Amino acid sequence: MTQARGIRVLVWGENHHEKHDEVPRRLYPDSMHETIAAGLRSLLGPDIVVDTATLDDPEHGLSAERLEQTDVLFWWGHVRHDAVDDAVVERVHRAVLAGMGLVVLHSGHFSKIFIRLMGTTCSLRWRQGDDRELVWTVSPTHPIAAGVPHPIVIPAQEMYGEFFDVPAPDELVFVSSFSGGEVFRSGMTFSRGRGRIFYFSPGDQDYPVYHQPEIQRVLANAAGWAFQDRPRDLPHLAMHRTGEFDTPREWNGEALA
Amino acid sequence: MTQARGIRVLVWGENHHEKHDEVPRRLYPDSMHETIAAGLRSLLGPDIVVDTATLDDPEHGLSAERLEQTDVLFWWGHVRHDAVDDAVVERVHRAVLAGMGLVVLHSGHFSKIFIRLMGTTCSLRWRQGDDRELVWTVSPTHPIAAGVPHPIVIPAQEMYGEFFDVPAPDELVFVSSFSGGEVFRSGMTFSRGRGRIFYFSPGDQDYPVYHQPEIQRVLANAAGWAFQDRPRDLPHLAMHRTGEFDTPREWNGEALA
Amino acid sequence: MTQARGIRVLVWGENHHEKHDEVPRRLYPDSMHETIAAGLRSLLGPDIVVDTATLDDPEHGLSAERLEQTDVLFWWGHVRHDAVDDAVVERVHRAVLAGMGLVVLHSGHFSKIFIRLMGTTCSLRWRQGDDRELVWTVSPTHPIAAGVPHPIVIPAQEMYGEFFDVPAPDELVFVSSFSGGEVFRSGMTFSRGRGRIFYFSPGDQDYPVYHQPEIQRVLANAAGWAFQDRPRDLPHLAMHRTGEFDTPREWNGEALA
Amino acid sequence: MTQARGIRVLVWGENHHEKHDEVPRRLYPDSMHETIAAGLRSLLGPDIVVDTATLDDPEHGLSAERLEQTDVLFWWGHVRHDAVDDAVVERVHRAVLAGMGLVVLHSGHFSKIFIRLMGTTCSLRWRQGDDRELVWTVSPTHPIAAGVPHPIVIPAQEMYGEFFDVPAPDELVFVSSFSGGEVFRSGMTFSRGRGRIFYFSPGDQDYPVYHQPEIQRVLANAAGWAFQDRPRDLPHLAMHRTGEFDTPREWNGEALA
Repeated sequence: MTQARGIRVLVWGENHHEKHDEVPRRLYPDSMHETIAAGLRSLLGPDIVVDTATLDDPEHGLSAERLEQTDVLFWWGHVRHDAVDDAVVERVHRAVLAGMGLVVLHSGHFSKIFIRLMGTTCSLRWRQGDDRELVWTVSPTHPIAAGVPHPIVIPAQEMYGEFFDVPAPDELVFVSSFSGGEVFRSGMTFSRGRGRIFYFSPGDQDYPVYHQPEIQRVLANAAGWAFQDRPRDLPHLAMHRTGEFDTPREWNGEALA
Repeated sequence: MTQARGIRVLVWGENHHEKHDEVPRRLYPDSMHETIAAGLRSLLGPDIVVDTATLDDPEHGLSAERLEQTDVLFWWGHVRHDAVDDAVVERVHRAVLAGMGLVVLHSGHFSKIFIRLMGTTCSLRWRQGDDRELVWTVSPTHPIAAGVPHPIVIPAQEMYGEFFDVPAPDELVFVSSFSGGEVFRSGMTFSRGRGRIFYFSPGDQDYPVYHQPEIQRVLANAAGWAFQDRPRDLPHLAMHRTGEFDTPREWNGEALA
Repeated sequence: MTQARGIRVLVWGENHHEKHDEVPRRLYPDSMHETIAAGLRSLLGPDIVVDTATLDDPEHGLSAERLEQTDVLFWWGHVRHDAVDDAVVERVHRAVLAGMGLVVLHSGHFSKIFIRLMGTTCSLRWRQGDDRELVWTVSPTHPIAAGVPHPIVIPAQEMYGEFFDVPAPDELVFVSSFSGGEVFRSGMTFSRGRGRIFYFSPGDQDYPVYHQPEIQRVLANAAGWAFQDRPRDLPHLAMHRTGEFDTPREWNGEALA
Repeated sequence: MTQARGIRVLVWGENHHEKHDEVPRRLYPDSMHETIAAGLRSLLGPDIVVDTATLDDPEHGLSAERLEQTDVLFWWGHVRHDAVDDAVVERVHRAVLAGMGLVVLHSGHFSKIFIRLMGTTCSLRWRQGDDRELVWTVSPTHPIAAGVPHPIVIPAQEMYGEFFDVPAPDELVFVSSFSGGEVFRSGMTFSRGRGRIFYFSPGDQDYPVYHQPEIQRVLANAAGWAFQDRPRDLPHLAMHRTGEFDTPREWNGEALA
């Protein structure tokens, strides 16, 4: 429980809408990724060290060295998924399987990295119609739901609805409803290899969702949950000789066979 | 796959509202349990044999002999949960753990048998407000969802909302939304012992939900899913001698050590 | 429940060991895939129609037309995973997500199709040491475990051990132990898209496992479980207009708003 | 992440074998519960405050006041399950559902509290035969498995084998094998109500298991995992008026409808 160092988070943003579209620029003058990063810093203080990276950085800001120094990667992308280099996707994939945490946000459901990790189409229903979204906690013991109102009210948001084509999650944390009547499994955890993944759907370039303190609380909780203070280790094919784990031990003062 | 005999279903109804209250009497002149039974018969034909029982029958119609001849028990109760004899609850509990299927409907969430099987309070949010309920399939490969529209539209229904205090289900099949904005895990499977349990929330004495063909389809599917054509066998403490499973066999023409 | 037609199964075999190696040739003179197919036919009779295909067939015997006419595909591969054409893997992947069942056997854990569906490395521990494998049922209500002894005794088998790097299964059906002390989650179900997947580890080219009636029973059960009698439908991004599901209905003799 | 206070743990022991039987007295001269408590203290230091209680204490040491001041309760019992007062069981049950953590050890599988929480028989296979137990991690991202060897080797231990009649766990963390060939789901998590439960089977009065540092590590991890720093709150039936969560908010500088 004693935590020796801050969690090193890297918030990755596609950073396209903030440069090209009026509404996102007005809502997120510092960009979406910097807004997300600022929310994490304000809630977690010295328990977290947050950096950001974008699509336009060399290697998209996701060099091997940087990933090695990242405990939890947040991912926001939307219209430029195809522009992400396959070699970088492969690198992120391996980092997750070796133990890096990953938090995939909203339209990141169609990112190359999420589709690769899920193995499914990751498609869903959607509608841009200023629906009110209510985010209900269905797993109240989950650390990602700690301190979160029930429900979180998002006054206006893009609708994401079922069927959301992902594997059944390890844990279903949040379920959302929308004014139009749709439902969505909006907060889900998945373990893949040695890494922990959280998908969270609220958040869109056209709505100020990431300014809401409740949403920032979820993201801060997710950073803590996805963090594992262990050496990275990609699962690999292991040859196993008989008896290698069978070290003799004492029991009751005598050696055991 | 070849099924030699029809599934023997017993639909149990509290049968209180149908006798005492005007709206249920008008909506369900043949009673709720008979309406449910008729729907099962019409959809499954010779694949099913359906009988009914009520609270007022001797032993509530749930004698040991009858339970032995029941493959799947449907349970509808609401205001008379306390009137169900503890010895009968114990008997049904053992039958489920030994392999009988159980389908718990709507307000049956507060029945003694469901609370005992879940180990939790089974409480929830509710409101009687003529909400429209939409029942969305989130597990499209599940046999209980076969042939079911997405969503099922229930024009008016009592609201049941989260947090629904039950264990995380083995499989989450349906999630409902209500006009008021609430969500509910409305179709869930649980295995307990050797028995299969399905909880399905749509259905209330004040709404004609059990007359909807889509709802009848879900219940017919549930009967098929909960049915297991095996001898009953209550899990029990088993003493295990070393090597009793280690029967010698041939391999490659020679006896194996 | 009434099943109008036999399940159309296609058993795919790499068919390399049977041609090149002495022990597999002796154990499986008709090839492994034909042995598996014969077991399915003998247990399921008219409920099943079984065909086979191999790596050396044109398009590996997995043309679009053939997949369309396949309800459940069994997959056995080992040393030639890399020889499977990526376009065929893509085709099988889409078929599974659209609703085809898939049963992956033993060393198929490293097949391209399984790795793609799982999103992980699918690596494991192993040792070829004539271990006795015991296959224990931990989900006794599961149809794949129906009629299966507890445990299944496999006199000699290659050892597969944990950690097996796959996502947590939807349902854990079997857990195996080996003489050397290792354990393995040897029977697991996964849903991906609209398709059902079963992974089953017993079975190796150097042991007569597929001749064991208990193993054949598991495979026959798996064919029934993975089969879905629905039209294929690949999940896709769906645009959703408000109210399209909101068809007016009658309630209590009056039209509902 | 920042933790303001130590986790308040209460280790409950039946304390029968240590008083009456020779082997347990020799292996655990300070009692099993004190040994477990000492292990937790040594590993967690100021992050934990550990107290103990036994069957013979007034109210078994589990008064309402004491439970209110307990974050995580450890439970070891074996031959005196029936001597535990039903009113105390009811009290512990409510405390768990309201948010108290519970760690059930070994033969505690047959305790009243565990059976009530699980809703099943909780029966299993067993044999007292000095089997070697190997405890394998199948969920390497789980915090309870952090820093634990793979496998943990227990030189001699009572055998517990499948089928273990409990609900499918939320997360399967450990699977054990025994020399005799049996397997057991030896580490499992369950959420019930607002409380977190961990069942861990290694540990018996006749073997020095609780002296092993690896076992102590698991128990210390479990204390951290089961702890939730939230006010207690028993789930209850909640009446929900329409729109109570629908507080108006600003969006984009304008009030939202």
